[in-house]
Amino acid sequence: MTKKGRVFSGARPTGRQHLGNYLGAMRNYVALQDEYECIYCIVDIHALTTVETTQELRANTYDMALDWLAVGIRPEESIMFVQSHVPQVTELHTILSMVTPLGKLTDLPTFKEKVRQNPNNVNYGLVGYPVLMTADIALYRAGLVPVGVDQGPHIEFARETVRSFNYRFNTNVLIEPQMKVTEVPKVLGIDGVQKMSKSLDNHIELASTPEETQKRVMMMVTDPQRMRRSDPGNPDVCNVFSLHKIFSSADEVANINVECRRAGIGCVDCKKLLAKNLNAHLEPFRARREALNQNPQQVWDVLHDGAKRARELAESTMRDVRAAVGLAE
Amino acid sequence: MTKKGRVFSGARPTGRQHLGNYLGAMRNYVALQDEYECIYCIVDIHALTTVETTQELRANTYDMALDWLAVGIRPEESIMFVQSHVPQVTELHTILSMVTPLGKLTDLPTFKEKVRQNPNNVNYGLVGYPVLMTADIALYRAGLVPVGVDQGPHIEFARETVRSFNYRFNTNVLIEPQMKVTEVPKVLGIDGVQKMSKSLDNHIELASTPEETQKRVMMMVTDPQRMRRSDPGNPDVCNVFSLHKIFSSADEVANINVECRRAGIGCVDCKKLLAKNLNAHLEPFRARREALNQNPQQVWDVLHDGAKRARELAESTMRDVRAAVGLAE
Ligand code: SF4
Ligand code: SF4
Repeated sequence: MTKKGRVFSGARPTGRQHLGNYLGAMRNYVALQDEYECIYCIVDIHALTTVETTQELRANTYDMALDWLAVGIRPEESIMFVQSHVPQVTELHTILSMVTPLGKLTDLPTFKEKVRQNPNNVNYGLVGYPVLMTADIALYRAGLVPVGVDQGPHIEFARETVRSFNYRFNTNVLIEPQMKVTEVPKVLGIDGVQKMSKSLDNHIELASTPEETQKRVMMMVTDPQRMRRSDPGNPDVCNVFSLHKIFSSADEVANINVECRRAGIGCVDCKKLLAKNLNAHLEPFRARREALNQNPQQVWDVLHDGAKRARELAESTMRDVRAAVGLAE
Repeated sequence: MTKKGRVFSGARPTGRQHLGNYLGAMRNYVALQDEYECIYCIVDIHALTTVETTQELRANTYDMALDWLAVGIRPEESIMFVQSHVPQVTELHTILSMVTPLGKLTDLPTFKEKVRQNPNNVNYGLVGYPVLMTADIALYRAGLVPVGVDQGPHIEFARETVRSFNYRFNTNVLIEPQMKVTEVPKVLGIDGVQKMSKSLDNHIELASTPEETQKRVMMMVTDPQRMRRSDPGNPDVCNVFSLHKIFSSADEVANINVECRRAGIGCVDCKKLLAKNLNAHLEPFRARREALNQNPQQVWDVLHDGAKRARELAESTMRDVRAAVGLAE
């Protein structure tokens, strides 16, 4: 089958994944495989930019890889690997750092935000985060990067950095990546207010048991105006309903949309239905996860095989880069 | 023979070397080999921090290596190699960048000086110059770095960065280097005023022919107060005399010191004597240079063999570093 191009995406090793990760990225990773040659990278070097994300790197890498495989990344077809296993990325990073104006990095809104979050940990590596990200993409000559609209500036930065490199060394060995914008729903946590996130403990893990999953769903905050069972509700402001739209059938969604508004269905029943449908969706993931987890070496083997294939692509790019720069062979 | 420790030094690929390079560094490189295990690196990645030094990298690397061998670096004993041939240095650089406060880099006097020199080229890589330098040293677990006193802050920076790394990852895999201060004469150019440097064209190349060398010596500015042959001169302010003290015999030096002051010797004769002694000193270098240059592949072979041995040391360090950081194997 001819693929339409090469996609690269990287994600920090954050351990067991949750519904927010799934709906925001992983589901899309799986779908892209049908049409594109996909390279998915667990960016563990990026995780070193802040102290807290440096903990438990190995376990977090494993757990994330396990979830990626569980939801349907096909490692024979796609390349799935750990960033630090392809050290060529640091070589390209260092070379690209020579064509990156410092001011451009410190002006980026994401940098300013990070400084606000970690005023005592503004390290040199943190400043260079977008350079390393550019190296990730350029190293594999990926034409497309699936991102949310908010990451537009980073891709624009990557394009400009690639252009600067190609211009300065009068070459075209690096490719300017294009942004592949994907509509992703904003997934709120069970509090119904904030974005789903592990650190806020408002998340539902993909690897939870059906019982745990149901328990978390039953804890979900619904339409805050609906105080009693007999009050009519408003699905438009209810996070349970948002998830129904993803995991339940069109008929079920249409029905809740009507019944909730006239108090024909109670929140408890509504949530039970969501939990059932969500569990049905997650069931095949759990099965795959469990099978793989019987023998963790399988997961590492996938990552090592991915790294091997990634290194071949990387080394081919670096040969061209070194020649373009004029480094001695 | 048991050596007293491991020395590392790096120099940018600046092509054919001159007397200033020889007296300021290379001569010391040669001498250190008797007592230390020496690692000498042509730092071509560092050369990328500024646009002008990126030109002719390959030729400059070759010419510098040739001069190093010509003056007496013994490549079977010492490791002599090109920085970019051991990409592990960029890996360590990237990891160390995560423990390096940005402010510490931008506060360094050398950074401020570089910004003054290249206000339009303050790139991210330039800021990280000392981090890459630290990686160079730490990668080979070198205990000693021969430097002039003015580079003290850089070694202090390297020590602090190594400490930060070891502290943050609760390890001792990296070694804090010590500064090995060497008394080096300040070598002035033939103008007798500015530091000898290729860019000022006030230099005397090691690879010059005896005739060219003599011609450059004859152009040297002497005691500016000595206008006529009959005027007494002052050797203390004469750059020709400074070089006599290095290249001429004690008797000759003592004699000039007396005769110059009473106009017993003219500058022309004084310079002729210097040219003769300098040429005698350079003669064995020229012979070795010419022999090697018959077959440039010999020089590249030395560099490639050095890189191979350097990579083994580097990979051993990086294995420990990756484990200490907790990156997945
Ligand atoms: S019935 Fe369902 S959609 Fe309506 S408020 Fe309750 S949980 Fe939300
Ligand atoms: S005689 Fe020699 S030492 Fe004296 S001024 Fe002339 S060149 Fe210098």
